[in-house]
Amino acid sequence: MKYVSFLKATNFVHNLLINRIPEGSTVIDGTMGNGYDTLFLHEQVGEEGVVYAFDIQKLALERTKEMLIENNIAIDSNRIRLIHDGHENIGQYVKEPISVAMFNLGYLPNGDKEIITQNSTTIQALSAALSLLQARGIISIVIYYGHIGGLEEKQRLMDYVNNLNSSEYTVMQCSYLNKEKNPPIIVLIEKNK
Amino acid sequence: MKYVSFLKATNFVHNLLINRIPEGSTVIDGTMGNGYDTLFLHEQVGEEGVVYAFDIQKLALERTKEMLIENNIAIDSNRIRLIHDGHENIGQYVKEPISVAMFNLGYLPNGDKEIITQNSTTIQALSAALSLLQARGIISIVIYYGHIGGLEEKQRLMDYVNNLNSSEYTVMQCSYLNKEKNPPIIVLIEKNK
Repeated sequence: MKYVSFLKATNFVHNLLINRIPEGSTVIDGTMGNGYDTLFLHEQVGEEGVVYAFDIQKLALERTKEMLIENNIAIDSNRIRLIHDGHENIGQYVKEPISVAMFNLGYLPNGDKEIITQNSTTIQALSAALSLLQARGIISIVIYYGHIGGLEEKQRLMDYVNNLNSSEYTVMQCSYLNKEKNPPIIVLIEKNK
Repeated sequence: MKYVSFLKATNFVHNLLINRIPEGSTVIDGTMGNGYDTLFLHEQVGEEGVVYAFDIQKLALERTKEMLIENNIAIDSNRIRLIHDGHENIGQYVKEPISVAMFNLGYLPNGDKEIITQNSTTIQALSAALSLLQARGIISIVIYYGHIGGLEEKQRLMDYVNNLNSSEYTVMQCSYLNKEKNPPIIVLIEKNK
């Protein structure tokens, strides 16, 4: 098996969250993409938990369904809800408290690079996820910003999380130091109480 | 039990490393302090592993011994070597490859604030740990810099890690965004191969 760096962004977030998401809880994959986080979240919350996964691209839903089927997971179960809609509409679908929400911002790897997450919907999505987040819940955001408009999306998002109330939320930013070419940034938000 | 924030610096590092340090491997606690990392590292490497723990303050060794005894761990074992010397001398004591080295830079909590880690010895210590680090090994550094000389130590360290060869090492910096008063910075280094 190919070695995946411990500090590779998506791996790093999984390393942090593994075994720390309450079984049976409700979680959100805000950007389904190829389905890796949807699968990971399902494994973490177990059969009693619920995963809501969003993507505006039909292709992402197809890939995620394939990945789940390959892993022998029933995709018609109410426990994994694959929603073909933008993550800014999270609040229309999720009504219960969540323990975790995961976002990968940028474009779908190997997908249509014309369809990127938009900074206006990103802030709406994050705001919706924060309002559903239970005490000690965590939001992870991996930001890829090497595409057109990416820097602006990143800046708006950083401004937003910088201004979160520190008594309510702990916010951490993880960045790569010795890499060139816009390496991703990871933002972690914990609800304090 | 009091809730400890998932993102609290020392907790964050433990969360990242837990269950990921090879059992039976050799590890270094570069700054023994009150012994929390020494205990953590011993739990991770198990009875077949070896922990080398360093501190220039006698008080740190006493506190660490107390903590180990409280946890029913034999302190006269060759498996935990509490060394009363500065961590810049790591190379004089450790001759085998290490899987992990942990550092907390700054002063000993509740100790003598006059005795702080010095930036010259810090770079020497880190350099020694890097030269012992095995492939896929990890170094964690938590930097407290709110004391006199702390900013300078932080800057020298950041310059040093920024210049590590990216083909050899992946370097990540984790910082708190919405906190005032010099919150700690965490640096993570992974040896790529």
